Amino acid sequence: MAKITRKGIAFEKDQLSEFDRLIHKRGYTNRSEAIRDLIRNELVEEKKNNPEETMLATLTFIYNHHDHGIQHKLTDIQHKTPGLVRSSMHTHIDAHSCLEVLILEGKVKHITKLADSIISSKGVRHGKLVLTGIC
Amino acid sequence: MAKITRKGIAFEKDQLSEFDRLIHKRGYTNRSEAIRDLIRNELVEEKKNNPEETMLATLTFIYNHHDHGIQHKLTDIQHKTPGLVRSSMHTHIDAHSCLEVLILEGKVKHITKLADSIISSKGVRHGKLVLTGIC
Amino acid sequence: MAKITRKGIAFEKDQLSEFDRLIHKRGYTNRSEAIRDLIRNELVEEKKNNPEETMLATLTFIYNHHDHGIQHKLTDIQHKTPGLVRSSMHTHIDAHSCLEVLILEGKVKHITKLADSIISSKGVRHGKLVLTGIC
Amino acid sequence: MAKITRKGIAFEKDQLSEFDRLIHKRGYTNRSEAIRDLIRNELVEEKKNNPEETMLATLTFIYNHHDHGIQHKLTDIQHKTPGLVRSSMHTHIDAHSCLEVLILEGKVKHITKLADSIISSKGVRHGKLVLTGIC
Repeated sequence: MAKITRKGIAFEKDQLSEFDRLIHKRGYTNRSEAIRDLIRNELVEEKKNNPEETMLATLTFIYNHHDHGIQHKLTDIQHKTPGLVRSSMHTHIDAHSCLEVLILEGKVKHITKLADSIISSKGVRHGKLVLTGIC
Repeated sequence: MAKITRKGIAFEKDQLSEFDRLIHKRGYTNRSEAIRDLIRNELVEEKKNNPEETMLATLTFIYNHHDHGIQHKLTDIQHKTPGLVRSSMHTHIDAHSCLEVLILEGKVKHITKLADSIISSKGVRHGKLVLTGIC
Repeated sequence: MAKITRKGIAFEKDQLSEFDRLIHKRGYTNRSEAIRDLIRNELVEEKKNNPEETMLATLTFIYNHHDHGIQHKLTDIQHKTPGLVRSSMHTHIDAHSCLEVLILEGKVKHITKLADSIISSKGVRHGKLVLTGIC
Repeated sequence: MAKITRKGIAFEKDQLSEFDRLIHKRGYTNRSEAIRDLIRNELVEEKKNNPEETMLATLTFIYNHHDHGIQHKLTDIQHKTPGLVRSSMHTHIDAHSCLEVLILEGKVKHITKLADSIISSKGVRHGKLVLTGIC
């Protein structure tokens, strides 16, 4: 478990009550938890800008499996940088379309390159990369 | 397969050659494909703003499985709105942390609510929602 | 001046030292100040999603002043919703291009509509809207 | 004026009619114009990631002018990198708060540094940087 330390923070009264309302709406039962999440988000955002940082990521994309050669190409790309793709999950949306999610781990520059290759493939429709990490 | 129609588009010469350079770097072999992807992104962005729209989504989050009651709570949340979670994938990051991805399908307002509940749970660290669709 | 209240917040030790490093890099001399800024950002993000909310905004756009009728059109749009545009600033970039910034105040739905009209005008190149407020 | 070149682009019929609906809603009268704007946005997004790129920017921020020494500090920061700030505009929001917009021109790394310094200043509340350019 992470070591916890307690610090006094100066809040503006009005802002704090607005914030308490917002986090209550989102389901938080604890103000410290909500503030730690804000901080974590900010740390993740910073790491994303460093191509050499090692991060986790998920790549979500939709593709048409009838598209000639697409599945072969997608497999090919995933094998080019061994160790980058940890696992993948696949779901059928309709007669033509699949949604696939990859869990990736590696340097930001390698993750981005793989995501670009997949999203730019003919047959791949919308694709989005989420970078995350343990901060 | 989607029906294709060919239209003449007026480009600025300099901008077009800059764009061709950018999409080549990202791996596109075809300019029409890249433009269709830009359009699709824009359509997805618009749909995300409508709470009543039916969309697909993935929710990526990291949590500490040692946190008391967390797995029970996460399962509980996912069962509250039946049919919203299509499937999930789980991977171990280190001794404490797991990364989980859910594939969701439903109205934007329901997807957002479930994502808020999970991200605000004690024990859940960084979480990010990706909304997508077939446009 | 805003009324200040001091609260104890539980931080994870490692995360806190990472955060202290980040905010020091950005120029903060005070941790409470940095946390209040994070909270404010989050509150602004929430308000932006409510079309009826009254907010402040700036609209930045670049346009080619040689484009026939563009200045007349831009003035026209700004006068359609009286009271929305508080002030504007203009700067010359090169022989053809101007950068203009408008300060806007009004309901999110009116601000967005005006921004869409300007950005979609022939002759207007890149445009970006920033919504802000006193939270 | 930019040199124009006409190219045939292959669209999916359904996607194109969705796109036409969206751009009509936003006020575009011309499909080519809307596509050029999408491309420009994408080129600007790419340039933002290169610290050495020369770009234009606007920095929007709100501050409390009663805060001791704030105006002196803001002026100081703006003079540290001569030539970076092209012009500024100021507006009074209420008895305490001002909204200020700076137009900046310079390398991305210098623009970002100045924005960080201002946003992290005590007394400065919400701040947002928009990077733009002529693409």
